[in-house]
Amino acid sequence: MNRILIEDVSLARQIDFLIEMDKLKGVERRSPLVDGSRLENSAEHSWHLALMAMTLVGQANEPVDLARVVRMLLLHDIVEIDAGDTYAYDVNGNLDKADREQLAATRLFGLLPANQTADFRVLWEEFEARTTPEARFANALDRFMPLLHNYLNDGWSWREHGVTAGQIRRRMEPVAEGSAALGDLVEAILADSLQRGLLPDNS
Amino acid sequence: MNRILIEDVSLARQIDFLIEMDKLKGVERRSPLVDGSRLENSAEHSWHLALMAMTLVGQANEPVDLARVVRMLLLHDIVEIDAGDTYAYDVNGNLDKADREQLAATRLFGLLPANQTADFRVLWEEFEARTTPEARFANALDRFMPLLHNYLNDGWSWREHGVTAGQIRRRMEPVAEGSAALGDLVEAILADSLQRGLLPDNS
Repeated sequence: MNRILIEDVSLARQIDFLIEMDKLKGVERRSPLVDGSRLENSAEHSWHLALMAMTLVGQANEPVDLARVVRMLLLHDIVEIDAGDTYAYDVNGNLDKADREQLAATRLFGLLPANQTADFRVLWEEFEARTTPEARFANALDRFMPLLHNYLNDGWSWREHGVTAGQIRRRMEPVAEGSAALGDLVEAILADSLQRGLLPDNS
Repeated sequence: MNRILIEDVSLARQIDFLIEMDKLKGVERRSPLVDGSRLENSAEHSWHLALMAMTLVGQANEPVDLARVVRMLLLHDIVEIDAGDTYAYDVNGNLDKADREQLAATRLFGLLPANQTADFRVLWEEFEARTTPEARFANALDRFMPLLHNYLNDGWSWREHGVTAGQIRRRMEPVAEGSAALGDLVEAILADSLQRGLLPDNS
């Protein structure tokens, strides 16, 4: 690429990382926008979740460090730049998802200056492990939001991919671990979706 | 809309706000993605800036509260849901921009529970006023990033809209106020763009 040289090595690495991150805007998810006009991408989804964390922090089950939740959510999907978005209900795609994402994490976080490589990767690993209050809350948001988008679109991607209420119920189990209030909404949305015939009930 | 009723009034308002926020994904900006495949939208742009703040916080001129910078950036463009994206170099569009955005802020932040309406609006007003270290740094990022995107696309939107080096130089003045290192990059990018004939030099 025909570009200026940046003499400060750390700044040069940071700018290269941020340029690479732009590719997340081209990773398509299976969930539609609320207005149904198109599928959403992983960058705008990450923005929505970070804003959701700011808005719903009072609904977390445990006290959480909001700043940490937000940083985790800003980073949580960047491995998809290399590994792609693996649909939550794709059994085969999920078999090797962890391996693909670890390779992606090594390359992508490795673009940064060394101290930031470690800091950012720790946040991503924490999100994946779901063992801290911050990670439990962040994961609750990440699972709830596509449910809401699909519900507001009459079960768009559920019908498209033949997803059942039982699959969704298992996928949504961590929501109540992060936020009981959102867990209750999951139940209400599932009940209404079943009643309206948006989902086959073979749980 | 055919939807479940949420009995907790605060949660209901928060969910309504978050659903409304989805519209930011449909607000198109004048800057292209780095790969030039399309114009970017304001939601994915906001994600990119928040990640940029995490990455470049060490390049700020003054010590900043990163969490506050990030929250400010997540919110900084939401008024565009009602007011649209006003191109930085559109003279007429900028005449009534402030009025349009104040009306939008009143409606959109007003969707939240009252305590959050105030908290979120304060962050947005702080970003706009550029009088705190956090707002100066956030504004530096917001101005620098589209410059970089356009530069990496050989001046795409500058040529399309007849923007000159002088206009860009004035628009970029706040960058060095937030980050001297990014201010230096602005100068280098402008010098290279002029040398390569991407911009007319009528500053």
